[in-house]
Amino acid sequence: MFEEWSLNFESSTPCYLQIYSYIKSCIFSGTLPIGTKLPTQKELAIQFGVNRSTVVTATELLAADDLIKSNGKGGTIVKNNASSLNAPPPPNWTSYIHAGSHYPNKSTVQLINNNEHRTDIYALTRPELSKELFIPEMLKEMRMYNALDPDSLGYDHPNGNFLLRENLCSYYADLGVKVNPDQILIVSGALQALYLISAGILFRGSAILTEAQSYIYSVNVFQSAGMRLFGIPADENGISIANLEKTHSQTNASILYSIPNFNNPTGILMSEERKKRLYQFCQNRKLPVIEDDTYRELYFTERKPIPLKFYDTNELILLVGSCSKVLFPGFRLGWIVGTKPVIDRLADIKTQIDLGTNTLSQRLMNFLVESTYYSQHLEHIRGCLRERRDFVLDILNRNFHGLCSWSIPKGGVYIWLSINPNISVSKLFQRCLKNKVLFCPGDIYSSHANNSIRISYSYLPLRDLECSLLLLKQCMLEELNLMS
Amino acid sequence: MFEEWSLNFESSTPCYLQIYSYIKSCIFSGTLPIGTKLPTQKELAIQFGVNRSTVVTATELLAADDLIKSNGKGGTIVKNNASSLNAPPPPNWTSYIHAGSHYPNKSTVQLINNNEHRTDIYALTRPELSKELFIPEMLKEMRMYNALDPDSLGYDHPNGNFLLRENLCSYYADLGVKVNPDQILIVSGALQALYLISAGILFRGSAILTEAQSYIYSVNVFQSAGMRLFGIPADENGISIANLEKTHSQTNASILYSIPNFNNPTGILMSEERKKRLYQFCQNRKLPVIEDDTYRELYFTERKPIPLKFYDTNELILLVGSCSKVLFPGFRLGWIVGTKPVIDRLADIKTQIDLGTNTLSQRLMNFLVESTYYSQHLEHIRGCLRERRDFVLDILNRNFHGLCSWSIPKGGVYIWLSINPNISVSKLFQRCLKNKVLFCPGDIYSSHANNSIRISYSYLPLRDLECSLLLLKQCMLEELNLMS
Repeated sequence: MFEEWSLNFESSTPCYLQIYSYIKSCIFSGTLPIGTKLPTQKELAIQFGVNRSTVVTATELLAADDLIKSNGKGGTIVKNNASSLNAPPPPNWTSYIHAGSHYPNKSTVQLINNNEHRTDIYALTRPELSKELFIPEMLKEMRMYNALDPDSLGYDHPNGNFLLRENLCSYYADLGVKVNPDQILIVSGALQALYLISAGILFRGSAILTEAQSYIYSVNVFQSAGMRLFGIPADENGISIANLEKTHSQTNASILYSIPNFNNPTGILMSEERKKRLYQFCQNRKLPVIEDDTYRELYFTERKPIPLKFYDTNELILLVGSCSKVLFPGFRLGWIVGTKPVIDRLADIKTQIDLGTNTLSQRLMNFLVESTYYSQHLEHIRGCLRERRDFVLDILNRNFHGLCSWSIPKGGVYIWLSINPNISVSKLFQRCLKNKVLFCPGDIYSSHANNSIRISYSYLPLRDLECSLLLLKQCMLEELNLMS
Repeated sequence: MFEEWSLNFESSTPCYLQIYSYIKSCIFSGTLPIGTKLPTQKELAIQFGVNRSTVVTATELLAADDLIKSNGKGGTIVKNNASSLNAPPPPNWTSYIHAGSHYPNKSTVQLINNNEHRTDIYALTRPELSKELFIPEMLKEMRMYNALDPDSLGYDHPNGNFLLRENLCSYYADLGVKVNPDQILIVSGALQALYLISAGILFRGSAILTEAQSYIYSVNVFQSAGMRLFGIPADENGISIANLEKTHSQTNASILYSIPNFNNPTGILMSEERKKRLYQFCQNRKLPVIEDDTYRELYFTERKPIPLKFYDTNELILLVGSCSKVLFPGFRLGWIVGTKPVIDRLADIKTQIDLGTNTLSQRLMNFLVESTYYSQHLEHIRGCLRERRDFVLDILNRNFHGLCSWSIPKGGVYIWLSINPNISVSKLFQRCLKNKVLFCPGDIYSSHANNSIRISYSYLPLRDLECSLLLLKQCMLEELNLMS
């Protein structure tokens, strides 16, 4: 009994509640008919890998719902299911909101989501471009363009706007990546791309490899679909191939998720040498790859970084692109580039969950990439972001000695800080929030990054960046003093 | 073994492929370790409710993959899992695209999705407003409005644009429905609302009640989440309460999904009397309701229809709204109005799957509802749609005697045709497609509507509407002649 289910220990839903919800769903769905004898609490504890007290709490809740009872011989049996209860259940929304296949976001992530839009908050969490980074002339031209044409505001092709897909093909051709429009699916941002992949081409329970510090840990997109994540350590040149090899052999993973260019949250740029070795490895092992290509254009290096997809002679890589970090997150616009059967499957699922991507943003994005403005804009924001990075590094160098350490990002919008181990990051987070400063604690990106935080330098006005960093310093000092 | 899984007989994926994929996923995920003895083919056939030959086909595929073998004593055991195979599996995308939790769309639906955007097709399927229905002045004002403000194109609050939510509150207050902005979640169209509800607040395997002919059968949003749909017959005044009562008692359903105002596909307007009785029933049974409110504003009656939510004194109803049928589907803009705990839960999940709704459309929609244009626009399109309905009814009256029958829709954009039973609708569909006319066969909205079709009168220019209907007539006559 219950063999096909297991607890999600990474979920913010307590284990007793997961067990309660699961057994309740088995009773309601008829999988456990009335009279079924349940395993003993001890057996359940062993099976689910929890303390017996956790099982006791869960079964108490079930008994309180009048769903199970003692059979008088030390065992427990299913007493009622909802259809057998005399009085119909009230419209108890609380029981509904604990149902559903999706895990809730981690509580820290919920806290960030609900606070970073406050106007009185310094959001070092926000990765979008500050409004002063946009060339006014470009915005003006976009406004002049007639995006609001009723002819183009109907339901679109499942794969998205054809002209935009054609122009993306030209864009990738310039990078040495040859694809056709039917190998592209336009989606509502990169996160939706990952969601579609999890819902469309991965078995429940699949193992997924990823960098040990990764964006993917901060969203429940794979975890809610029952996937298991295995983190692979990375050095300053990117993911460790030796570790990847070892973990791949142990886990028989279905896919690798990687952010080779300016990892979120660490900012690491994978070297070309490492990219070649990584592709070689994946090709040998026939290991498909999701390449998250969100940050590649935001480089400060002389050489333009190349996507892993550049090496892809074997249709092994699903490249995920987005305009959120290079243009506007509010467009909710991204794309998947991959082999046609996979794109077809994902497009079909997308029509089932939201009937396609907003056509306005697609038209505006297409207008931009067809114009000369887009490359000018990219050039411009690279310069601005580099100045902002240097601005923040300067503040760090002058103020944060002994409080934290960092490496210098070669692109992207994040700096990853390793905090003095005498400071509790979770306490620091709470103290900063009270002082109206919000940052991303490292543990949302990894279970082994309790002592790191991620800050972004792209969003806040420079004076607010400085002010918030000084407040952060103040909070760190106060936490340190409490410890000594 | 396999107790918690069952076949989806409504899926377009053949049963043998569902069984094959499922057992393979159990082997790959380790649920069935090497050496596990499988039930006999006969036992499996009984358990899954299929013919033995279906099981034989599935196990042959598993054997061909070298995953199972005979144990020499008439039984079958797990031979390999992917990690034990000598050669690593190729990046066989075909095996990936049969994975995933989502069912593919029905093949007819896929065919429609992939053909209705062709410029050489008369799409009687498309429900959006023809471009000539928009008041040019309104479009001009929308273009003049500065929607492209970088300040408002970042990541937004999980619930969506606050001003839009406030204005929706005023809109519903005018209808006698009192809600606050935090009881509203902005989503990417009504379909996404349903997806979020299925992923967020319903247990896998839940029973859902709905009108026997319903939009919900044409999308896999609930089916992919493992829900079971139970259709309730409706008469010209809406869903039958007696039948609802009977089915509710039998199924212990979790929720009712209803389109009370201008049902898709039948066009039926539920009477006020029926709405009252329906709400009374749901309140007595504590049965929550998803009210799909997509078409209410498109009324031709003297009295403005009211939403079921008007009667909702008990927070029983989740109302789903959309601007797709009254404005632009390309905006991908809808909303859910409901009790706060449910809205919070659904907002949290939305941040996990696509990080919120496009902010451009939200700003433009908000601009409209704040202006006087929106109510003028609604008034205008009601008039136009009524004329178009009459135009089509006139063609039907003059040409389709003996070929089909219909009732007169009091609003919305659809006419539901009952076809002469001597005509095979599936053959008619193919014949029409060859003649470049596309309609929606009834069986995508119900398993008992093999002899109906849905046509829309909102989209095609009038001359194309006429031409396509005459082609439809021609195809019907040809099908009839083949039969005689």
